[in-house]
Order: sequence, then C-alpha cells, then structure tokens
Amino acid sequence: MSSQSFHPPVRTLMGPGPSDVNPRILSAMARPTVGHLDPVFVDLMSEMKDLLRYAFQTSYELTMPVSAPGSAGMETCFVNLVEPGDKVIVCQNGVFGGRMKENVERCGGTAVMVQDDWGRAVDPQKVEEALKANPDAKVVAFVHAETSTGAMSDAKTLVKLAHDHGCLTIVDAVTSLGGSPLKVEEWGIDAIYSGSQKCLSCTPGLSPVSFSPAAIDVIKNRKTKVQSWFMDLNLVMGYWGGEGKRSYHHTAPINALYGLHEALVLLENEGIENSWTRHMTNHQALRAGLEAMGLSFVVPEGERLPQLNSVSIPEGVDDAKVRGQLLKDYNLEIGAGLGALAGKVWRIGLMGYGANKTNVLFCLGALDGVLSGMGARIASGVAVAAAQKVYAG
Amino acid sequence: MSSQSFHPPVRTLMGPGPSDVNPRILSAMARPTVGHLDPVFVDLMSEMKDLLRYAFQTSYELTMPVSAPGSAGMETCFVNLVEPGDKVIVCQNGVFGGRMKENVERCGGTAVMVQDDWGRAVDPQKVEEALKANPDAKVVAFVHAETSTGAMSDAKTLVKLAHDHGCLTIVDAVTSLGGSPLKVEEWGIDAIYSGSQKCLSCTPGLSPVSFSPAAIDVIKNRKTKVQSWFMDLNLVMGYWGGEGKRSYHHTAPINALYGLHEALVLLENEGIENSWTRHMTNHQALRAGLEAMGLSFVVPEGERLPQLNSVSIPEGVDDAKVRGQLLKDYNLEIGAGLGALAGKVWRIGLMGYGANKTNVLFCLGALDGVLSGMGARIASGVAVAAAQKVYAG
Repeated sequence: MSSQSFHPPVRTLMGPGPSDVNPRILSAMARPTVGHLDPVFVDLMSEMKDLLRYAFQTSYELTMPVSAPGSAGMETCFVNLVEPGDKVIVCQNGVFGGRMKENVERCGGTAVMVQDDWGRAVDPQKVEEALKANPDAKVVAFVHAETSTGAMSDAKTLVKLAHDHGCLTIVDAVTSLGGSPLKVEEWGIDAIYSGSQKCLSCTPGLSPVSFSPAAIDVIKNRKTKVQSWFMDLNLVMGYWGGEGKRSYHHTAPINALYGLHEALVLLENEGIENSWTRHMTNHQALRAGLEAMGLSFVVPEGERLPQLNSVSIPEGVDDAKVRGQLLKDYNLEIGAGLGALAGKVWRIGLMGYGANKTNVLFCLGALDGVLSGMGARIASGVAVAAAQKVYAG
Repeated sequence: MSSQSFHPPVRTLMGPGPSDVNPRILSAMARPTVGHLDPVFVDLMSEMKDLLRYAFQTSYELTMPVSAPGSAGMETCFVNLVEPGDKVIVCQNGVFGGRMKENVERCGGTAVMVQDDWGRAVDPQKVEEALKANPDAKVVAFVHAETSTGAMSDAKTLVKLAHDHGCLTIVDAVTSLGGSPLKVEEWGIDAIYSGSQKCLSCTPGLSPVSFSPAAIDVIKNRKTKVQSWFMDLNLVMGYWGGEGKRSYHHTAPINALYGLHEALVLLENEGIENSWTRHMTNHQALRAGLEAMGLSFVVPEGERLPQLNSVSIPEGVDDAKVRGQLLKDYNLEIGAGLGALAGKVWRIGLMGYGANKTNVLFCLGALDGVLSGMGARIASGVAVAAAQKVYAG
C-alpha cells in the first residue's frame, strides 16, 4: 500500500452538527501537544472550567468536558445518577428521548415515558401527571433542544415541576448550549450535558457537562458502584474536580481541548446574550426566506429552535437528490430527517460560527437553485430579498 | 471576563504518552471539518479501517477507532465480552491490570487475579495454573506492554494458553501498537485495544480496537444487553462496521480522526517492521547512555519495552525537583512512576515520532545536566558518547 494524506473538501455545514468551525478553533487544535499532567495544561483545565461555567450560566463546581462525544455525556449523567431499581420519568418528543430510555434501562432503572408529538415541545402538564402518578420517581429527564426535530422545550418550567415533586433533573442541552437562552443555575438544573460541535462551533468529540451540588450528593452516596469506569464521576472528579493536585484517571484529549477552549474564549468575548441574539436574528432571516419560497416549518412558532430549522420537504421532491446536489454543486450540507421524520423533513442548522448572514443568504440561494432546477413548485427568486428585509430591520 | 487564546509551550514529550506529535498530524487535524455522514468522510472511514488492520496486522473486519481515549477502548472490550456471572482471568503486573479488574467487576463478572511483580512480564506458568484451576473461565485478559512499568509480556504464548483452555483473550496494546512486534491475527488475539497517543504519535483521544470473528460471535449472542449504550458494539458496528450505508450512532470526532488517519498513513509509508526496528535502535542508544551515566533499568533485559524505559531514581535525588527542572529549563517532559512505583522510577518514552536520535541525545544531555547540577552521584559527560557508539553500530 502507499496511502495518501486526506484533504477534505471545504463544505458549508448547515446540518444538525457538526456546524461550521471557526478557523481560529482549527488553528488552536494544531498547536503543540503538551502532557495531560503538565502544569500549563492543568491551568488550562481550570480556565476551561470557568469558561464552561460562563457558557452554562452556573457556578457549579463540577463543570467540565467529558472526553468523548455528546452521547457519552448523556451516558455520564445517567450512569452516575441512576441506580438499579430507580424510576426515571423520560420525556420523549424526538430521537434523543428514546436514547435516554435506553440509558435508563441499561442502568437497571425503569423509564416512565411521557410522549409528545415529534416536532412539539414537551408538555409540562403531561409531566406533572406522570410525577403525580409516580411519587417514587427519582429523576426527570428531558431534551431542552431536540436536534432531531428542531423543537425547544421550557426547561425552566419542567425543572421546577420536577423539584416540586422531589426529583432531580437530567437535561440534554446538546443543541442549545451557546445558541439559546440556558440558565443552568437559575433554573436549578441538576445534571446537564452538551456537545462541542453545535452552537459552540467546535469540532465534534467532547461533551461539556455540569452537575449541581444536589446531584453530586446523590453520586457520592450511591449504594452501588457506577457501572462505567471511564464515566465514573467519583474518579473523574479527581482529575477535573479539585483546584489542587490532579490525579491521573484517563489521558485527556489535549488538542481537542485546545479547540474547545478557543471556542469558549470566542463565546465569552462575544458575550453569551449577543450569541443568543445573533442566532435568533439569523433564524428570522432564514425563516423569512424559506417561507417566501413556500417551505413550511415543522415546529409551531414559539417552540422553534433558532439554531435548527426543520422544514417539510415539498411534495414530489426527492430528498436525497436535493441534498446530494447541494453537496455536489455547492459544497453545502443540510441535514436529513431522523427516525420518524426521515425522508419527510430537512434540518437546516444555524449554529455558532455558522449562524451568520453569509450562510443564510448562500443557503437560500442554493436551495432556490436546486429546487427550481428540479421543477419543484416553489416561489423562485424571492427568498434572498425576504431575508435581506429582516436584516434591514 | 476577557479570556485569551491558549498558546502552549513547545515541549519535547518523552513521558509515557502523549508522545511527540508529528507536525503533519497536527496540520491534518486543522483541515476543514466535514459532516460525519458525508460521503468523503465515509470513504475516509473505510480507508482508516484498512490502515488500522495494517497497524494491528490483521484482517479482522471489526477494526476501528473508539471515539474516546484508551480507557474507553478497554471498557469497550470488557462491556461487550463480559456478562454478569462470567469469570475472567486477569493478569496484573502493573497499574493497568488493576483497571481491568475494575472493569470486570463493574460488568458483574468475577476477576481471578494472576499477580506478577511490577516491572516483570506476565508469567505464562501462573496463567496456565489459573486456567487449570478455573475451567469455567471465559476470558483471559492481560497487558501486552505495561505503560506503568515498561514490561512487555509474551502475548503469543499467553493467547495460545488461553485458547488451549477454551478462553477468549482481551489484550491491552495501548503502548505496543506501532512500537513493538504485534501480530493480532497470527497470534489469534480476540479483542485488543490501543491508544492514539503512544507509538502512533497522534494526539490523545482515540482508541483503536479490533475483534476476532469468535469475539463478534460472542457479542452477537449475548444473553443481556451491553450495559453501555455508547460502547455497545452491536450499535457501533452499524456506523463503523459495514462497507455500505452507515447508520447514525454517535457523532464521530471528525478532526481527531483526520489526525489518526495521517498517523496511520505515516506508519504505513514507513513500514511497520521499520518502525519496530527504529524503536529498538533508539532504545538501545538511550539505554547505553543511561547505563553509562550509572542509571539502572527496572525491567530485566528481555522483558523490556523499547518504547518505555523505566529507570530507578538514584538514591538521594528529588524526583519532582528533577522532573520540574527538566520541564522548566529544557521543556522536556519525562514520566513519573505510577502506583506502586510512584517516587521510585522515571519513565522515559521513545514513542512513534519521538523515537529518534535527536530526542535520545537531547534527553541524555538534559538529564546529565540536571542530575550533575544537583550533585547526584552519576557519571557525567559520558552518556551521549555511549549512545553515539550504538548509532555508529
């Protein structure tokens, strides 16, 4: 064999994540590797924890990135908080609620499912009923921003309900962190996980998490050992937890953490409220363009995520062919539907660095070109102007 | 706050890993991110599997990188192969055998421990006795290259013994892959895991694994679900396994995989036997220098890893002070002792890209300078010449 280096094409990533990565983050990742116990790296870890606390809007001590993708962050929350026999109320309104159920069951717990339509927010009333019907429930778990549908749920209300009934909360913020208002401590979230590759615009592979003092108390007083050695927070805390001497647990993914640090510096320098506003403005412009074209949103207004726009695929249009042509002719990636929505919707991401005017106008122009080129019944030539009108105020 | 970008110092990494990263790998990691289901990325995944098969010297279909560090690779092997009630013979001759025990127990299995001195290879006779005494054992697990001590065990013999008694094998090759002869298929290893940051010289964060058809058969016929959703190979295989359509499991760490791919291209272009020889030559030169200086190896000749050189700290010498000064004055990292060897040894790595003449001579010169500067009783001024003699043949 005589293999060659890989040189990827330059795509515009407007799917459900990974999102476009800020070049500053890519260049941070290429900086010289240091050891995972090097004093300068230990300082970086402390700074990263502070920056993550800012991103999560919390002062919780146990706030750090899990050294693996978002699904490992999810599992970290469940394996640490759920013991065999525990009952967990799991809200499902998309793919990721189903994954939570899998996690509960693999921990030996029982999942009480609260189902909502895919594309809708979690209904607090149903959650309250489930809480009343299950006074022995220990945890309520839900997805703040459903990446599979584009729906946002009212985390503040859901957490309050859970607490009123003596439950802890596990919240999936994979797609919300950095893109939509999220106030971990003010809302009282007990365990939260996110991903590096969505509204933080970092490369995929890391999962920021944060745990409340109440959650840590439960973890420290477990009756059984956490079933995962890699994800056992009692051990991970020795490496990431204290401010003093770090004890070796696993080898941290040094250069990936350089990237996450840079992403968090960018977020902090911009200001998180400004980032939320930027996501909303660009969403409104994209939305105006898509609707002018004749496309309709899956999620009702008021429950929509600005950073993930799910639109129905117009009748008679070949899903894969459109996405294939966008990729081939425009180097533009938009997302397919997932699970129950496969083949029915496109998911257009405006996440982090990618939530900008260039991407919005480019995407509208490309979609218009591809769809009208295929003879789809859309209003051609009007989308960009509609978006520009939003930007003009 | 107004945080700043992080600019690490340029270290020479001669500890137990991460090792010096080839600049080609760092620049590969900074290439533009593509989606994890992008056709060009799917092609890259196939190529990476081929390259990993070359590195592991196997044709096993299920050969891929776990999207997390080596300790998650270890856990992937155990959670998939060990079910509650299973008996596993675990060989311990350092820190990582102990971690294997933890893994077995957290899977609900029973670990039968075979203990050897730290710094020695696993004794095949003891393993045979354990196999005879435990005819109901399902798996034998051992560490090929003990990173905590620098000892190499005879994997071929141990695997044969296990198979003769009807057991599967789980092998830790974190520090051996790419640095020492390792022939997964010829030796018949059933499950093996490694790390990206040792003799592959990549950044930390990924764990290459490979599974034999016999291991896959066991995984597919489990009585219980794998306790980890993230590490369940029945699910991961849907994304990494087949050559056709990939189904979404988790979001792969795209840019980290660019790095691993480049590392594997470098290994393949060099030729794996050449890489093994290079590690051995540089080890012999380093060894000559260290011994000329008066330092002695922890591991007996014949059981030593070329890529990890453990030497006893001379009496009266302050461990932390020496390592601190090497880092401060020379930007050189060498490793401290771990577990039972903490404070007693230094671990000097010659791994992958870092196994070269420059590092050997630099390390000997720096150690000589620091130790003699502290008044340690070593032979000063002779180490570099002794090493050069080896290079001269």
